[in-house]
Amino acid sequence: MHLFDNLDSGNGYKIRLLLAQLGRPYEWTNLDLDAGASRTPEFLKRNPNGRIPTLELDDGTHLAESDAILFYLAEGTPLLPIDRLGRAQVLQWMFFEQYSHEPFVATPRYIVKHLPPGHARYAELPERLAKGRAALAVMETHLSTRSFFVAERYTIADIALYAYTHVAQEGGHDLSPYASVRAWLARVAAQPRYVELAARPRAARD
Amino acid sequence: MHLFDNLDSGNGYKIRLLLAQLGRPYEWTNLDLDAGASRTPEFLKRNPNGRIPTLELDDGTHLAESDAILFYLAEGTPLLPIDRLGRAQVLQWMFFEQYSHEPFVATPRYIVKHLPPGHARYAELPERLAKGRAALAVMETHLSTRSFFVAERYTIADIALYAYTHVAQEGGHDLSPYASVRAWLARVAAQPRYVELAARPRAARD
Repeated sequence: MHLFDNLDSGNGYKIRLLLAQLGRPYEWTNLDLDAGASRTPEFLKRNPNGRIPTLELDDGTHLAESDAILFYLAEGTPLLPIDRLGRAQVLQWMFFEQYSHEPFVATPRYIVKHLPPGHARYAELPERLAKGRAALAVMETHLSTRSFFVAERYTIADIALYAYTHVAQEGGHDLSPYASVRAWLARVAAQPRYVELAARPRAARD
Repeated sequence: MHLFDNLDSGNGYKIRLLLAQLGRPYEWTNLDLDAGASRTPEFLKRNPNGRIPTLELDDGTHLAESDAILFYLAEGTPLLPIDRLGRAQVLQWMFFEQYSHEPFVATPRYIVKHLPPGHARYAELPERLAKGRAALAVMETHLSTRSFFVAERYTIADIALYAYTHVAQEGGHDLSPYASVRAWLARVAAQPRYVELAARPRAARD
């Protein structure tokens, strides 16, 4: 397998964390997104939506969308429940992550880390951070009576939500009001074979 | 089963269309979203994220997020592939729908249909419509060599993308440049037991 990725991407980190925890080898390419490397004609053949992560399977098929890639890779492992309701609940939280969380937790981090001060997109921050706090409050309520998001064990739903939550401060969020979320972040970081977002995979080439 | 929904919602329509095509009976409640019916303390017990559609299963469990509900209901039916890659490809297009399509195809329709002219949110339309055209272009490229999104047959990936694409004009989109998308819309509308977005389910009570 070959993962097309960017080392600073939380969406890409989801895949790197899962593959590390599953002990699966893969090739890895770090694309320079600021230089447009995900929008070249060559890359658009891999993913017409021009986004990373994109995973090339051994048969040459390409799979896009971080949470769909997680679901594919976790099939048959302890990180994805086998019962129908458990799988649907994992998906519920992954769709929550992409629709109600990522634009309001990840995008502020992108603006602050990648755009120069004074850039027009800084004007988006107050509304995005407010919606991000709403998403964090939903997570806090859910985790106040649970150890993990689904089935009381560590699954890809946790990986999907951990990726940008654990670096939410980099976009201006304050996690101190969310005690249950912070305890859950610590439980995820304590999982076997955990790797950090900035950890370059061994097979790196870029 | 009991579907908490709103008749004008494309996300809710996904579930109504699938349940009609599967021939499955269900109870249905039409929430007045403009009056805040999805944000009441009672409803937040069903879905702490305060959104419809939310499906109450026979055992009292609630499932949220339209595409997760589709996946749950389609398990074991011809509308969801059984092979691992086919299922992941269905999910890829459903995550594309929620992240790259819905905010830019569905939200303009919401603004135009539900907010009075001159409302501050009309200022969002140009950027949202531009990103919506990018999503429609990705769909057009994919469908230019295919009949349906995955596995050359009608699946819940088609239902997920059909729901807001077929009413994209109501938000200001022009579908005339997307010939393959329009041909696909016609193929979906020709499926057995098709129902329209505005068709009130038989078990309606509101």
